[in-house]
Amino acid sequence: MLHQQLDLEIAEREAWALRRQRGIPNNRRLWVLTCMDERVPIERALGIREGDAHVFRNAGGLVTDDAIRSAMLTTRFFGTKEIIVVNHTECGMMTATGEALTAALREQGIDTDRVRVDPALDELALAEGAFSKWIRMFGDVDDTCMNQVALLRDCALIPDDVAVHGYVWEVERMALRRPNVRLSEMVNTAKAMGARG
Amino acid sequence: MLHQQLDLEIAEREAWALRRQRGIPNNRRLWVLTCMDERVPIERALGIREGDAHVFRNAGGLVTDDAIRSAMLTTRFFGTKEIIVVNHTECGMMTATGEALTAALREQGIDTDRVRVDPALDELALAEGAFSKWIRMFGDVDDTCMNQVALLRDCALIPDDVAVHGYVWEVERMALRRPNVRLSEMVNTAKAMGARG
Amino acid sequence: MLHQQLDLEIAEREAWALRRQRGIPNNRRLWVLTCMDERVPIERALGIREGDAHVFRNAGGLVTDDAIRSAMLTTRFFGTKEIIVVNHTECGMMTATGEALTAALREQGIDTDRVRVDPALDELALAEGAFSKWIRMFGDVDDTCMNQVALLRDCALIPDDVAVHGYVWEVERMALRRPNVRLSEMVNTAKAMGARG
Amino acid sequence: MLHQQLDLEIAEREAWALRRQRGIPNNRRLWVLTCMDERVPIERALGIREGDAHVFRNAGGLVTDDAIRSAMLTTRFFGTKEIIVVNHTECGMMTATGEALTAALREQGIDTDRVRVDPALDELALAEGAFSKWIRMFGDVDDTCMNQVALLRDCALIPDDVAVHGYVWEVERMALRRPNVRLSEMVNTAKAMGARG
Amino acid sequence: MLHQQLDLEIAEREAWALRRQRGIPNNRRLWVLTCMDERVPIERALGIREGDAHVFRNAGGLVTDDAIRSAMLTTRFFGTKEIIVVNHTECGMMTATGEALTAALREQGIDTDRVRVDPALDELALAEGAFSKWIRMFGDVDDTCMNQVALLRDCALIPDDVAVHGYVWEVERMALRRPNVRLSEMVNTAKAMGARG
Amino acid sequence: MLHQQLDLEIAEREAWALRRQRGIPNNRRLWVLTCMDERVPIERALGIREGDAHVFRNAGGLVTDDAIRSAMLTTRFFGTKEIIVVNHTECGMMTATGEALTAALREQGIDTDRVRVDPALDELALAEGAFSKWIRMFGDVDDTCMNQVALLRDCALIPDDVAVHGYVWEVERMALRRPNVRLSEMVNTAKAMGARG
Amino acid sequence: MLHQQLDLEIAEREAWALRRQRGIPNNRRLWVLTCMDERVPIERALGIREGDAHVFRNAGGLVTDDAIRSAMLTTRFFGTKEIIVVNHTECGMMTATGEALTAALREQGIDTDRVRVDPALDELALAEGAFSKWIRMFGDVDDTCMNQVALLRDCALIPDDVAVHGYVWEVERMALRRPNVRLSEMVNTAKAMGARG
Amino acid sequence: MLHQQLDLEIAEREAWALRRQRGIPNNRRLWVLTCMDERVPIERALGIREGDAHVFRNAGGLVTDDAIRSAMLTTRFFGTKEIIVVNHTECGMMTATGEALTAALREQGIDTDRVRVDPALDELALAEGAFSKWIRMFGDVDDTCMNQVALLRDCALIPDDVAVHGYVWEVERMALRRPNVRLSEMVNTAKAMGARG
Repeated sequence: MLHQQLDLEIAEREAWALRRQRGIPNNRRLWVLTCMDERVPIERALGIREGDAHVFRNAGGLVTDDAIRSAMLTTRFFGTKEIIVVNHTECGMMTATGEALTAALREQGIDTDRVRVDPALDELALAEGAFSKWIRMFGDVDDTCMNQVALLRDCALIPDDVAVHGYVWEVERMALRRPNVRLSEMVNTAKAMGARG
Repeated sequence: MLHQQLDLEIAEREAWALRRQRGIPNNRRLWVLTCMDERVPIERALGIREGDAHVFRNAGGLVTDDAIRSAMLTTRFFGTKEIIVVNHTECGMMTATGEALTAALREQGIDTDRVRVDPALDELALAEGAFSKWIRMFGDVDDTCMNQVALLRDCALIPDDVAVHGYVWEVERMALRRPNVRLSEMVNTAKAMGARG
Repeated sequence: MLHQQLDLEIAEREAWALRRQRGIPNNRRLWVLTCMDERVPIERALGIREGDAHVFRNAGGLVTDDAIRSAMLTTRFFGTKEIIVVNHTECGMMTATGEALTAALREQGIDTDRVRVDPALDELALAEGAFSKWIRMFGDVDDTCMNQVALLRDCALIPDDVAVHGYVWEVERMALRRPNVRLSEMVNTAKAMGARG
Repeated sequence: MLHQQLDLEIAEREAWALRRQRGIPNNRRLWVLTCMDERVPIERALGIREGDAHVFRNAGGLVTDDAIRSAMLTTRFFGTKEIIVVNHTECGMMTATGEALTAALREQGIDTDRVRVDPALDELALAEGAFSKWIRMFGDVDDTCMNQVALLRDCALIPDDVAVHGYVWEVERMALRRPNVRLSEMVNTAKAMGARG
Repeated sequence: MLHQQLDLEIAEREAWALRRQRGIPNNRRLWVLTCMDERVPIERALGIREGDAHVFRNAGGLVTDDAIRSAMLTTRFFGTKEIIVVNHTECGMMTATGEALTAALREQGIDTDRVRVDPALDELALAEGAFSKWIRMFGDVDDTCMNQVALLRDCALIPDDVAVHGYVWEVERMALRRPNVRLSEMVNTAKAMGARG
Repeated sequence: MLHQQLDLEIAEREAWALRRQRGIPNNRRLWVLTCMDERVPIERALGIREGDAHVFRNAGGLVTDDAIRSAMLTTRFFGTKEIIVVNHTECGMMTATGEALTAALREQGIDTDRVRVDPALDELALAEGAFSKWIRMFGDVDDTCMNQVALLRDCALIPDDVAVHGYVWEVERMALRRPNVRLSEMVNTAKAMGARG
Repeated sequence: MLHQQLDLEIAEREAWALRRQRGIPNNRRLWVLTCMDERVPIERALGIREGDAHVFRNAGGLVTDDAIRSAMLTTRFFGTKEIIVVNHTECGMMTATGEALTAALREQGIDTDRVRVDPALDELALAEGAFSKWIRMFGDVDDTCMNQVALLRDCALIPDDVAVHGYVWEVERMALRRPNVRLSEMVNTAKAMGARG
Repeated sequence: MLHQQLDLEIAEREAWALRRQRGIPNNRRLWVLTCMDERVPIERALGIREGDAHVFRNAGGLVTDDAIRSAMLTTRFFGTKEIIVVNHTECGMMTATGEALTAALREQGIDTDRVRVDPALDELALAEGAFSKWIRMFGDVDDTCMNQVALLRDCALIPDDVAVHGYVWEVERMALRRPNVRLSEMVNTAKAMGARG
């Protein structure tokens, strides 16, 4: 009868809306860490859909205290079992050094030694002189990606049985690669053909 | 001639890939702060596309030091002029108190007083006893949304001329609303009709 | 051969046109009672198609003598076995009181005590002074929905074995709910997490 | 800026949900009276869409007190300016006489003289012996259609400036016609050709 | 290998082009007799496609010596086993009498007694005074359809085992019916309901 | 108002159904003469649609007395101004001689001298011994096409101002050509290039 | 888990890019020889897709030393097992004689006896007076096609077990045929029907 | 009238088929030189369609005597005004040296000093010992592309006013680039931001 069908549909919509209250995890039990960059279409990059994953994005796709907080919540309380890290080539984080940015901010009249970096949590304090480091600029996307994976694997707040893997998104190809495995460097080299001849 | 057309297309692809190097902002000069939740399809919610915005997502869609860092970079160095904050109903951040979660973690053997909350930056330290507060659980999504907007508007690291607005995404309707303007509470009330009669 | 195929198609069209003459019920053996409102796309709301149901619609989606007449015909003579009632939020029936409307009509020169409410059936008479009540304004859509279900279940003119269920269509979400089960009130409340922790 | 676009979309959704509260009429300022029959896809028949019209449907598509009540509300209070009546061929209301149905109900044990025809409104009473007439069976769909139009045009509760027109839906063609203008009777007759020769 | 696939495709195209040379019948072994009227989309009416049938069309969809010639060729020499006749309502052949048309032609200066009706075959002669009859106007499409079927069934030049059936296409419904079975006359009549009650 | 729109649609459907009664010609004022062959999709070949043309089809696409009758009706009485003749390659009419077919029929027991070629019109008589010629087999499709055009242009029963043109449909290419202008013979020949050099 | 799926996709893209390095043949192990003409859509003609074949194209679709070099590489070193030759009607190579072209070039001031025909390979020399022959104009596309097949089958540099077949593409039909099997010459001829009668 | 439309369509088909006879150039007056590789979808790469260009393809996309012959024909006699050269990364021509391939052929029993490299043109002779060079293997795709452009620009057989440009197709990105302008090498390097700050 129709009322049974309607009740089922209503129940499914309720379950969607009340997932966290009812302890239902996301579809793929997945947490993603990636950059906020507009050229990283993360759902398309990973082949995931609405409902599939918790997606954390910050400048760089880096492990910060905020990332640790979010990863802890999803893995310890919301049922997540896998973490994928995606950094990307041509990231804004590689366009300058932290020192250069700090200098630029000072020229704009900001006292980078005394500015509050977390206006909502006084208990979180940055040591004096650490502002440039806090910006977290980096110089090599592949090393950075592998480092983030290592930081997450070693973190006490994330359960040991969570799988953590990292990839690099190439904005010049709009495709993923493994860190330090560049297809563009594998092509184009003349090699002896004897082995196949 | 065809070669002119090909050169143009190549130049456009280059400009896409090298946006940050060349100081090209994202399409809408927009930075978005929202939750990592799988029921927040942020591009669909805002009607934006690939290339349009820098999208920051963390647990809750909250202003943290990481959010400030990312917002500072995009507004001070990458050309962004507008900030949109999107929090959502039925957020996991409202399913428990910070104290309850801290207690749960301790039962799992984690020393929440001594654990490093930022394994990549020793200079960022959490005051003892502040762990529960650091998790940043909250109880009212509308107030939370308005608070995040206020924090960003007041933040010295973000230029004063950046426009900041906040919205609440209702997962039960899969639609946006303004904070504290609930359509579901505006319907269904008998009122005198005289004014229109 | 083709003529057999053509004869079959002709017979199917005949059966469609002559359903009532031949005692063929509608596809789902279903009768629907709902409001005449333009924001209630009843076929889409119920997931039904052309041919599936008899659909009764009046101001409010209310049990009137006309609704009883129609329900009696479909259940007693046209093979219907199920009734679905759909009322909706923000119904025009909640925008004023019957008294206010009566007063407004009088101001327009209508003698609401003597006006014929059924110009086609003199034998159906409204008691004097009952005009305001006859307009059937209401104040709570959920209670109203449950009342209509009860009225139909108790009605002697409708067979006892007909299943009767009611739903509320939310025009603000364009979705169905069960009466007094508001998803918008189930979200957004902080509760202890211990049970799931 | 994006926030202006979002505010506009939110305002449009609000206006849709709160149409009656705000005195916004339906799109076409139209009220439709038609039969509840499953072979009358009224939106398709009239070429109208979601939001366009208030649609009243009962057994037969007849002017009853309920129809008058609904038409009065939409024309006097909700901004409607036009009425379309649609009756249809092969209507179930032509498959028997009211007397035959009354007799059939009595055989099923129903006391048709004392049964309450409106369980929700005691003040609406049917004169004894009028049950068969109250069922409102009819024998000619074209005359019936024209009668409904006349009843609505003459009704004091409906403003005089409301346009009222009637059509017959042919279930055998799934198309509209004007009452008593049958295309199937206009074809197929040999006539002198001289006028055109 | 690809060359095998190409050879197969070439052979199929050859077989299509050379069907008659190779004695391949049409797909459905079907011959259709229908009117040349622009409102008779015969392929759609019968649900047939390119390659399915030999389709003969003349003014009226009538059995003429040309129709007999064509039917003889398809059934005796081209493998056809079934004949479908389709006449249609509102045919131009019913708009006047043959006499009226003959008179009209004479007014236009044509000597209808001496004009050659077949300029390509002198051996086919029309008896004097038979011109009006030769135009083959008719007055009743259903009788006409049944007559054409009878003429074809009785014709010595068409094998006895060929199935012959006739239908009427209603241009007012754009649908087929069997001759003298008018759906429009089957609807709309009040009948006693006791048998089903 | 909607009723005006509905009236217009009803009037258009009436005009379609009653075209002949009302003296409305087909859309393109066109009469087509073509073969009944299943490989001649005449609408696609000419780029015409439902309602555009009267289409006469017989074995061969030949001018017969039936074709003359039909052409006379459409041009003199139904408003047609243009005639297109389409014959086709690989026509069944070229697969044998009339004599061979007559002999084959006799072997099947048919008395081709006495058989009635028009069972519906006794006044139309075939001269003895003309049966083979009456079958109208032919040997060259291009000449045949040009002959049909000439016969129609010269025919007294067709008005002089009607335009008549002929084309050949190539079933091997599924495309039209002008008679005796074969694209397949225009290709592939080495010619001096000097004129363009 | 998602990372396994991502690794698989990355590996497939690598295998595509590195096919030659890794000794992976094309999908159909196919080499095609055809003309450079813009009316030869070779992929559509053969029903092949990206990745399916190595496609060699020159003026005429002819066996030259370059074609032999390319065929040798693909069959001896890149895994190819089948060769398809496609020449086409109305080829530019049939529009003049080599002598006429040579004369035209001389008029444009080119010394056709001394011009270097291969500017990249001095070791490849054309005998004096052979310029006209070197242009390789031809006069019959079917013979040319069969000759190219024979040249490839006999060539010592191509393995004997490679299958070689040739086809002619008709630009006037946009379809393939076998050499010297012209469908346009197979149609349209009157033949005795006795065999099938 | 329809016959004018049909004549136009026939004329357009004729013009397509007889382009070379009538001296009509290809749509873009374009000649393309590219590799026969299955991963080079040249139409998609250049954004061209059926009818747009003459496309020459050999092993490597190299200037050979065959390429010169074809380019001379298209530019001097068929109306072409532009040349595009497309070489590609990961070309099979870079997988071995010519010497290695020659050695491999000898091991397979082929006398590479005496084998005829052009079985159709005895007048074209390869100097003894030049076989390895004749295979034309190369080691750097960007240099190779620029060399082919230079060879074509300098060639006496190609008119000086023909525009010649070259591009590299990256099979790892499935996209074009200019020679020696690698996007993959332009990304990912930290540079001072001062200039834009």
